[in-house]
Order: sequence, then C-alpha cells, then structure tokens
Amino acid sequence: MFADRLSASAQAIQQHFDGVLGALDDLPVVRAMAHATHGGKRLRGFLVLESARLHGIDATHAIWPATAIEALHAYSLVHDDLPCMDDDDLRRGQPTVHRKWDEATAVLAGDALQTLAFEMVCREEASPDANVRATLALRLARASGAKGMVLGQALDIAAETALTPLTLDQITALQQGKTGALIEWAATAGACMARADISALQAYAKALGLAFQIADDVLDVTGDSATLGKAVGKDAEAGKATFVSLLGLDTARKRAADLVDQACDSLAGYGTDADTLKEAARFVVTRAH
Amino acid sequence: MFADRLSASAQAIQQHFDGVLGALDDLPVVRAMAHATHGGKRLRGFLVLESARLHGIDATHAIWPATAIEALHAYSLVHDDLPCMDDDDLRRGQPTVHRKWDEATAVLAGDALQTLAFEMVCREEASPDANVRATLALRLARASGAKGMVLGQALDIAAETALTPLTLDQITALQQGKTGALIEWAATAGACMARADISALQAYAKALGLAFQIADDVLDVTGDSATLGKAVGKDAEAGKATFVSLLGLDTARKRAADLVDQACDSLAGYGTDADTLKEAARFVVTRAH
Repeated sequence: MFADRLSASAQAIQQHFDGVLGALDDLPVVRAMAHATHGGKRLRGFLVLESARLHGIDATHAIWPATAIEALHAYSLVHDDLPCMDDDDLRRGQPTVHRKWDEATAVLAGDALQTLAFEMVCREEASPDANVRATLALRLARASGAKGMVLGQALDIAAETALTPLTLDQITALQQGKTGALIEWAATAGACMARADISALQAYAKALGLAFQIADDVLDVTGDSATLGKAVGKDAEAGKATFVSLLGLDTARKRAADLVDQACDSLAGYGTDADTLKEAARFVVTRAH
Repeated sequence: MFADRLSASAQAIQQHFDGVLGALDDLPVVRAMAHATHGGKRLRGFLVLESARLHGIDATHAIWPATAIEALHAYSLVHDDLPCMDDDDLRRGQPTVHRKWDEATAVLAGDALQTLAFEMVCREEASPDANVRATLALRLARASGAKGMVLGQALDIAAETALTPLTLDQITALQQGKTGALIEWAATAGACMARADISALQAYAKALGLAFQIADDVLDVTGDSATLGKAVGKDAEAGKATFVSLLGLDTARKRAADLVDQACDSLAGYGTDADTLKEAARFVVTRAH
C-alpha cells in the first residue's frame, strides 16, 4: 500500500538523520537540527528514493540525497517560521525551533541544515561517480537559491506589501520557486544519479509541484490546525491572494486533480514501474479533500 | 607590492560578483546580497587565487572558488550581525543588511549567499574535473557546517552564558571553527584543484587562521571603529574571554608573530613561489599594530 511505502521511506530517512546528526557534538544547535528534521511526511525524500529505484540506483546511495533534500526543506521551514518571517509557533504539531530554543539557535540550525544538505549529496556514499555528486549539488544550489526557493520566498515577501494582489501567473511563478523547485530536484534525482534523461520526471514534478501547492492552499481553508500540526487560515486572514482566492475552492480542487492526471501521464514511458510515483501524485491531492 | 596584489584580487572578485549577481532578478534580497559582498580585504578569496597560482591553476577557474568563499564568508557576517546574534549596525563602514533593509531580507540574503557559494564551486567553470568540483563542495560544507564554522559560532553563543570564562584551549577550538576552517579551505583550494598534496598549505592555514584571530582580538582592543568600519571593544565590554584577556596584549602579539613564522616555514617546499602567501601571513598580523 502506498501509505506504507511512504511511511517506510520516512522511517529510513529518520534513521539516516539519527546517524548523521548523532555524529555531531551534543550542542543546542545540533539538538535543534534534530528537532527540525523530525516528523513530517518526507514527500521530497520519498520522491528521491522512488525515482532512484525507477532507475536501478541502490537505496544505500539514494538515502543520501533523500536525506539531503529533507535537510534543505527543514532549513527553509526553520527560517520561514522565524518572527521576522512568518512568525509561527507550531510546526508538525511541535513548537518551532525559535520557540523551543531561541532565534539565534534557529538561525544557526537552519544555516547548518542547509550546509548539511550539500555535504550529504557530495559525500562519496551518495554516488561513486563524482560527476553525479557535482551535478546533484549544482542542481540543488540552483533549486534552492536566488533563482529558486529563495526567489519564491522573496516574491512572497514582496507580495505582502504590494498594492495589488498577485495574479494567477505571478502566484504560479512564486510557488514554482517556493515549493516547485525542490520537488523537481527530488523527483529528477534518480534519473540524475543514473545519468539518464530527466525530462519525463521533470514534467511529472512540474505538474505535481503545482498540484501540491494548490492542495496546500485548499487545506489552509478547509483543514484544521490539530490535524495539520500547524496554523491554518493565515493566508486568508492576511488577505493574501492564493489559488483558492483566485480560482474558488471547487475550481482549485479541479485544477489540482487535472494536474495530477498530467503528472501521471508524463510517466507513461516507465510503465507500471512508475505506479508508486503516480500514487504519490494522487496522495498529494487527496489529502486536501 | 603585496598590497597591490591583494587589491587587484579584491577587484577581480568584485567584478565576478557583479557578473554573477547581475544575472539575478532585481529584488531587495539580491541588492542585499550585493551590499553584503561589497568591500572588505577579501583575504579568503586572495588565498584561493594565490594557492591556485602556486599549483598552476588558471585564474579563470580559480575565480569561482575565490568568489565562492567570499560569498560564504559574507553570509556568515550577515547572519552574525542580526539582532538575535551580535546585533551590529555597522560592517565594513556601511550599515548592516538588517539595518539597511530588514531582518527578513537579512536572513534570506544570507541564506542565498550560502547557496550561491555552493553553486559557484560546482559550476563547470570552476574546474573541468568533476572530482575537483565535488571535493571543493564537500570540503566547503565540512568547513562551514556543524563541525566547522557553525560549531565555532555555537560554542561562542554557549560561552556567553557559561559560568566560567573559556580557557585558551577552548578559545582556540572555538576560533578554529569560527575563522580557521574557512581560511584553511581557502588556502588549500589551489592544491585541491590540482589534486595535489594539501598538507603544506594546510599547516600554513592552521597557523595563519589562529594568528588572524589573535590579531583580531588585538584590534578589538587597540583599533578604532572609524578605521575598521565596525564596532570595537565589544568583547571586553561583554566580559568575554579573548586571546588578549587571557594572554595579555604583548604576549598575544608575540604569539601571533610566532604563528606567522610557523606559517611561512610550512611553505618552505614551494621556494620563492610562495613569497606572496608569506607576505599575506605577515600582513594579517601587521594590521594589528
């Protein structure tokens, strides 16, 4: 069953984090890194492990980039939650890092998690092929930097003080940076590790990333914070334009469903081997119902 | 003359930053990145360029890691200056990023500068050899992460609330992380790019890094903020143990001078080719007189 596979992969990633972080000094910043990487569905790591399996890459290698992308994602959450950013108290049902420790520890733990992500893709255990390691690291930098995730975050901040709400095209661009770029890195990692053509997985990831964000906006309206483990309704309160505010709830759900179909169609060339990735795409949207 | 070479290399690095950052969108976070990477002696970048020259590596390649280490150093300064960390208003004679913009922009600009550093060492322009690129990135991650620079920073924060002041050994360990690790990465980069033995440059860097920090502590007591472009006397005010508080001013200066001799001796095998690196070591300490 898909849920079991997702949970098994989350567990493997947790174990890997335990080993890697356990090798560091016992300091507040390291405990904060462990806290920040604990829990969550670890969808990005799952996409790495599944795309790797699809390309015959051994899991003992793939666990490194799978854990790396989760470290990078965790860093972005720790910094996004800071008082000067989204000022959130709750994440995955737990106090955020700056609430449990302090802001300095949250800044540093986020910084070190970003660094750790690059370390993990560059270690020889990630791939015996130096070209693969360098490519994974270069693509990770591009996905997360000022043309990727940080760009999305900066556009989000700019939108808060903009005089007019964002258009659909602008929100789509913002989300491609903020969420889409890391999902794309994760889903293409397996092909990248096999030095194979990434285009089918890339098309899958682009559709999936957008569906994911639309589903997130739907959840922000329909979900409750106890189930989600984080605050909800914040976007609506802040009067921010979202896919739901622009499209309406029904159309947003329909758009997300269409994107999932599109994501699945992109994987046709892989045959039934890609069934798990197709289920992952459906899972992303069904959680928003 | 050494000062001319240092300034020529600083200029080359500035030009490289202009090109790289000029290719990004014109957003506050990108302007903040440019602000944060402007000015300074760029000693770390200089060490990369010089160690590369010593190993016959073309400057068109070496400029990438040289600029990368300055991006990484700049990220650490932007985050260190934040209100929740050192709360500094002035850096290189200019307002710090969070003063000129705001805290959110400073967090993001620092984040993106770290990412940019990894991007620059992983780009093919940095080296035609993927093994070199992956090794530079792995060593950069280790130097700057939770066993390197962030560890030093975390130990520094822990020291502020410690009941007893740090010992000389503890300060030495703290500074090896906070300053020494990046200097070591920079000085060994050239050998690393040539896939040559790094041990002589490593010994040079270890002595130089410690001399550099002792000189910094001396300057914090003897310098003035107008010349240095940053606040001085903060450590003494905060009652923090420094090399000067533990050794006294004269012994600290003597220790720094001895370390410079040691750094220069390490380079004996390179003959006169290493004269510039030797001058760099002397420069680091003489600025503290």
